[in-house]
Amino acid sequence: MGSVDISATSAATVRVTSTGLMVDGNGSLQQLLGFVDALLRGIGQVMLQNNSYAGLLFLFGIFYNSTLFGLAVLVGTAVSTATAMLLGVDRALVRVGLFGFNGALVAIALLYFLQPDLLSWSYVVLASACTTILMAAMLHLLSVWKMPVLTAPFVFTALGFLLACARFGRLHSTHVLPTAGLPQAATVEGIVSASTVLQGTFNGVAQVFFQGNVITGVIFVIALLVSSRVACVTALLGSLTGLLVAWGMGAAEPAIRSGAFGFNAVLAAIALGGVFFVLDAASIAYAVLAAITTTIVFAATSAALQPIGMPALTFPFVLVVWLFVLAGPYFPRLRPVAAA
Amino acid sequence: MGSVDISATSAATVRVTSTGLMVDGNGSLQQLLGFVDALLRGIGQVMLQNNSYAGLLFLFGIFYNSTLFGLAVLVGTAVSTATAMLLGVDRALVRVGLFGFNGALVAIALLYFLQPDLLSWSYVVLASACTTILMAAMLHLLSVWKMPVLTAPFVFTALGFLLACARFGRLHSTHVLPTAGLPQAATVEGIVSASTVLQGTFNGVAQVFFQGNVITGVIFVIALLVSSRVACVTALLGSLTGLLVAWGMGAAEPAIRSGAFGFNAVLAAIALGGVFFVLDAASIAYAVLAAITTTIVFAATSAALQPIGMPALTFPFVLVVWLFVLAGPYFPRLRPVAAA
Amino acid sequence: MGSVDISATSAATVRVTSTGLMVDGNGSLQQLLGFVDALLRGIGQVMLQNNSYAGLLFLFGIFYNSTLFGLAVLVGTAVSTATAMLLGVDRALVRVGLFGFNGALVAIALLYFLQPDLLSWSYVVLASACTTILMAAMLHLLSVWKMPVLTAPFVFTALGFLLACARFGRLHSTHVLPTAGLPQAATVEGIVSASTVLQGTFNGVAQVFFQGNVITGVIFVIALLVSSRVACVTALLGSLTGLLVAWGMGAAEPAIRSGAFGFNAVLAAIALGGVFFVLDAASIAYAVLAAITTTIVFAATSAALQPIGMPALTFPFVLVVWLFVLAGPYFPRLRPVAAA
Repeated sequence: MGSVDISATSAATVRVTSTGLMVDGNGSLQQLLGFVDALLRGIGQVMLQNNSYAGLLFLFGIFYNSTLFGLAVLVGTAVSTATAMLLGVDRALVRVGLFGFNGALVAIALLYFLQPDLLSWSYVVLASACTTILMAAMLHLLSVWKMPVLTAPFVFTALGFLLACARFGRLHSTHVLPTAGLPQAATVEGIVSASTVLQGTFNGVAQVFFQGNVITGVIFVIALLVSSRVACVTALLGSLTGLLVAWGMGAAEPAIRSGAFGFNAVLAAIALGGVFFVLDAASIAYAVLAAITTTIVFAATSAALQPIGMPALTFPFVLVVWLFVLAGPYFPRLRPVAAA
Repeated sequence: MGSVDISATSAATVRVTSTGLMVDGNGSLQQLLGFVDALLRGIGQVMLQNNSYAGLLFLFGIFYNSTLFGLAVLVGTAVSTATAMLLGVDRALVRVGLFGFNGALVAIALLYFLQPDLLSWSYVVLASACTTILMAAMLHLLSVWKMPVLTAPFVFTALGFLLACARFGRLHSTHVLPTAGLPQAATVEGIVSASTVLQGTFNGVAQVFFQGNVITGVIFVIALLVSSRVACVTALLGSLTGLLVAWGMGAAEPAIRSGAFGFNAVLAAIALGGVFFVLDAASIAYAVLAAITTTIVFAATSAALQPIGMPALTFPFVLVVWLFVLAGPYFPRLRPVAAA
Repeated sequence: MGSVDISATSAATVRVTSTGLMVDGNGSLQQLLGFVDALLRGIGQVMLQNNSYAGLLFLFGIFYNSTLFGLAVLVGTAVSTATAMLLGVDRALVRVGLFGFNGALVAIALLYFLQPDLLSWSYVVLASACTTILMAAMLHLLSVWKMPVLTAPFVFTALGFLLACARFGRLHSTHVLPTAGLPQAATVEGIVSASTVLQGTFNGVAQVFFQGNVITGVIFVIALLVSSRVACVTALLGSLTGLLVAWGMGAAEPAIRSGAFGFNAVLAAIALGGVFFVLDAASIAYAVLAAITTTIVFAATSAALQPIGMPALTFPFVLVVWLFVLAGPYFPRLRPVAAA
């Protein structure tokens, strides 16, 4: 998201002129390949990776767990990206997947909650298009502070569309989102075992896409390794940090094992450990503090949204990274990564 | 609100010098006429019309439904406008009604909820004065993005003053606001008839001032026609869009008939269909998307505020128009209306 | 907070070079004295006083009421100040206590709520460190409008850390914060007596540090007198205004006596009566309106947070002062105090 690296490895050799794509004979094939590349990068950007191979592997990991969610990610990313193109958004932004990742996430979140009938899919299409408007709005809003938008459009769109179901009789809910309705804190201190820690750490990575599946988590870790070794290590450490904080504070064992306390810390660790600040001792300490804080903010957000029955989604990640990035200029020991 | 057109038709021929009003002999009469004109424009600005005839017709429509609310609008507009003058606000802003419309709305909202005794009226006066401070604060806050304030000061002041009643024993509530405590979504899919659609559409326009009266809605439509044919058509289409979305999603029939799902869409359609963007095919599509989104955001806001018993008011309109205006610069097909 | 007056009376004669403290032989003693001075100013800044004697008297007043809270204030202020120094924050900001007052308040708020065991104290240390990040983030965020941060970092950190306890089994709550769970509005109109008014007024000052003790309130008033006669008078008038508004509106007598309706009005009155605007007839009227509004916003915030069981803390003060300062430039009769 912050790292708009257009020279990164690209599956399709897209050539670009100032008037758009389509420069040679079989332009429509080129266009299609460019669109597919933008989709894969959009899926990769969910974990801040502008890398189509990582996006492809994320997609594979999701399909491994659920065909429905795999299709949801494809539709959501395609709709939000196509909406951006239709509205004439600067192609450089579209091509790196900046208008795809929020659509991907909103589609999964809505289809986790709603029975997948025709109306629900229409609702998903509308919501994915709305993330594009919200992305543009927040790019403008946050440009004042040179702040990244992160997954805020997904969080606000998903909360809005899920809340609205309470007034609409034709959308039928299935069950709650994986991170909503967390079990209350354990009265006994829980029986956290080595398997809790191992499963919880990989589930924490899988839950970034709301998938509760250890193998999917392993595939996601491999996908990160393909894109960036630093991101791979910080993601695992972030997940582990979230898990250990939750364990130490006495959170319920099933919630710890599910990865619920991990996925926001995963994203915060990736963002602050190399994406927005140059990786050194100071930024590592800062990223660890952010991962710990994110875990507490996750618990707080989950509790605050309980009266309206809503999940925290990735709001804790967004809030903590915003604050830690905003605070950066006051802390001279942290060196910001130059924006591309 | 966005359209500060000082050359617009004015009932009083107010001449202005750099030191204020009062330029000739019977200055105080001129001042009074200028004040009345600012009040009527303030009432007109509730639907973004800087037009004193429209304001007069809106006032007539409200008095047709309820003398109490007619008086409330007069008092609220007068207090917020006078507070602005007392605090020395730039006369050009006061004269076009920018410091009146939030006072008008807050007075209706509070008197819908509270028994109209002396203490309630004092509370209304204080709240109307507060909308003036909030208007100035938000003009400053949003100037960074050149964003319009819309009815945000009304929404926040009304929510604050209504919530505070929970701690104050001397303010006695009558019943809930027309848009609070919406019936839950229909279990049967409702029996929406032609009369639901007709009444719902006009009620949707009337509910902009929280009036549940079809004739008042018709008078409001005529008022809009006097001020702007475009605004008149977009208002009706906005109301109809909100109604159809709610119907399609399975909302409860009484809520649809009451216009509850329409009034925010009315305002969003007026704002985006001609006020902030030049009217063309792109902006019409954008306005339709905004009206649909506003209806969903209304359902979401209504559900989110249910635990604290508060109505959504015009918050969905404010939020959606802010986001759609903020996003504008990223969409080159939309041409912004030059600020006066 | 707004008044960064580095020339103010200082217990330690700290000399400063461009490279930091430590200019002569016994540098480490100098450093220690400088740190103690920063701590005392930090405590003073809770009531916007950049004055170490005021801070010392505030600390004495807290210890008079409770040794636990006295220690909490010392630890919280020390941790947040030391975190700022560790992260390399500009010494001029640290020295005047700007990175201390939020730590002081968050430590009291958490230890009021949690049983003071080792885990709770660790939680307090983490929260105090987080106020420093949040302070830097909000300084950056609000610099766009030249707005003061006030106690916002305390409010948001305390709410987050208190809410998170709902998910963590090892933190045991004692009882609610003094300003949470206010009794509902009196059904009988209360039996407010002269003693209610007298005790309520001083308790209102004491509650700025969440202390429900009249003598502590008296000590705080003396502390303000040492620092600024204007602040002393406006604080008492603010407390009295909040009390009278609550009484007039029919709030419950025990809540009035406890000072719950006063402490936010105390802070708003100090801030607007001399700190951010030059003291004259216009700013006094403005400060009175702000104190009245703050009391209503306190009632509203308290009611809004009831479903999640959270106290209003000093959020009403922060919100109202932000709005009244933001609105200032539109009201030419108010003259802003030049920032140091």
